Amino acid sequence: MSELRKDPITGRWVIVASERGVRPSDFHTITTVQSGGYCPFCPGNEAATPREILSWRSHGTGRDEPGWSVRVVPNKFPALHVEGSLDREGEGLYDRMNGIGAHEVIIETPRHEATLAQLSVREIEEVFWAYRERIVDLKRDRRFEYILVFKNHGPAAGATLEHEHSQLIALPIVPREPRAEIEGAARYHAFRERCVFCDVIRQDRKDGSRIVFENDRFVALCPYASRTPFQTWILPKVHRSHFETIKREELASLAEALRLVLRKIDKALEHPSYNLMLQTSPLHFESSPSYHWRLEIAPSLTRIGGFEWGSGFFINPTPPEEAASFLRKLEL
Amino acid sequence: MSELRKDPITGRWVIVASERGVRPSDFHTITTVQSGGYCPFCPGNEAATPREILSWRSHGTGRDEPGWSVRVVPNKFPALHVEGSLDREGEGLYDRMNGIGAHEVIIETPRHEATLAQLSVREIEEVFWAYRERIVDLKRDRRFEYILVFKNHGPAAGATLEHEHSQLIALPIVPREPRAEIEGAARYHAFRERCVFCDVIRQDRKDGSRIVFENDRFVALCPYASRTPFQTWILPKVHRSHFETIKREELASLAEALRLVLRKIDKALEHPSYNLMLQTSPLHFESSPSYHWRLEIAPSLTRIGGFEWGSGFFINPTPPEEAASFLRKLEL
Repeated sequence: MSELRKDPITGRWVIVASERGVRPSDFHTITTVQSGGYCPFCPGNEAATPREILSWRSHGTGRDEPGWSVRVVPNKFPALHVEGSLDREGEGLYDRMNGIGAHEVIIETPRHEATLAQLSVREIEEVFWAYRERIVDLKRDRRFEYILVFKNHGPAAGATLEHEHSQLIALPIVPREPRAEIEGAARYHAFRERCVFCDVIRQDRKDGSRIVFENDRFVALCPYASRTPFQTWILPKVHRSHFETIKREELASLAEALRLVLRKIDKALEHPSYNLMLQTSPLHFESSPSYHWRLEIAPSLTRIGGFEWGSGFFINPTPPEEAASFLRKLEL
Repeated sequence: MSELRKDPITGRWVIVASERGVRPSDFHTITTVQSGGYCPFCPGNEAATPREILSWRSHGTGRDEPGWSVRVVPNKFPALHVEGSLDREGEGLYDRMNGIGAHEVIIETPRHEATLAQLSVREIEEVFWAYRERIVDLKRDRRFEYILVFKNHGPAAGATLEHEHSQLIALPIVPREPRAEIEGAARYHAFRERCVFCDVIRQDRKDGSRIVFENDRFVALCPYASRTPFQTWILPKVHRSHFETIKREELASLAEALRLVLRKIDKALEHPSYNLMLQTSPLHFESSPSYHWRLEIAPSLTRIGGFEWGSGFFINPTPPEEAASFLRKLEL
């Protein structure tokens, strides 16, 4: 059973997932992507995953059978476990909780070779709708405080399976990064009575230099203080704190924006590994005037060294204005 | 000229180092270690680096000549520049400073093939003494608030040159990670009137399960909430807030502890890439009762994925008790 441990100095939580059973000798292999051969995410191999939670499938096909276009299953090797009640305990100086949470996999396409960037707008819409459905469902479980949906594409981004998928982890706490953003945005709001993300969108659209793309409902930009080269955010132009409030008719615009950004990044950087993160508000937070959800795309181009680890301070060799200009002008 | 930019949401600073000139096409090569052939850090090639700032060398040899055992030079491709005054300016919502700072390289040995773990205790002492000398010197420059000394060993840790070296970056701000630790330790001290690191050492020495090694003056342990597998801290047993107060006679004990930990990690994990960080107090902070300096060693065994990026929450597959037990029992 995994557990959550709190750092007594900073208060940061860590998941210690011992049942993943990694021993010193295992570290040489865990970061390589399994390629070719048997794939547990391909149609026909549904029995290789835990039973499906949700799927979009053609008429007349049944649960855990082929015929799906998007399929959500529990992670077979979860970082956290969904069964049990949340127990907190101390041990002298230290604090821990048992590892309660949900860890699910969203298989984005039945086609083993297709990447998310290669899917149609319609297919990407279905992936987003699956995110929304799972968040709405898990929100009913009062043990959970926060859900992060994320995607590791390619070996340098931490992917371990080739078949395109995203993951969802529901947590009993609000973790450090979203908390820092939520608190920072609340301070800004207290001072100016405006959403800082709405202000970023307003200033960046007026300035133009960091904008990659925009359509009727969404804007894609390279943020002013990007930590890594070609980091790109996609934000709703109108203030929205929670992703799960997205409407069916807004999904096509979001899918169009993501598809275009991913295809531009693929072309500009020759199909890099990347991480995709959905940054949204904590679950049991009312609609917030200060926090604004977004998708974040971060190509894996640079290594994290001792300076970044030790300081939390990043050195970005590509100004976001150069990255945005490059992506904006790139023809597909 | 590079610049420091502040994230308007979290307040985190980022270095945007545009003159490093990285374009989309450069990203395929920047993370590989140059091996074989010409080495700018080898004796005889002193003219390939900027002029040396400090060296330990044999009698009768002169600056920028062979004959040194440790040599400190400015980084030829600095992330920050040492010349100029610190200018801060706003641009609407955004804040920036020009990229003032020092970026130096500590060449740890004249022998191209030797690793830090393979040096003698005496040689490692000289490396630490160079860290101390540089911190004491840079501390006189009132533009700087914080110095991070770090080392990237091996390609997965971000090294770009094979010849063993560490780096030092002096910054005009106290960055996010040290700030979070300093603030957390101060809160603990306000509550308990004790140093949290001293309490960690006391509890972990009594418990024993996370201890790797100890000698008269230092203790090596795998911290309770380790973010990554086999993360190891080396701390002075007696409370000390600033590394640069270390005495000549304490250096042999520190060098012995680091050498032993690195050799155990090399043997256990088959010579992994790793980062070494010196975590110490801000420069113009008086001796602090709540913060305690340390060396942190973090082997590069796992990839940072979207979950870690998006949440700041780490999944560590190896409990620190297992890592410490493994290292403690390993015979060299």
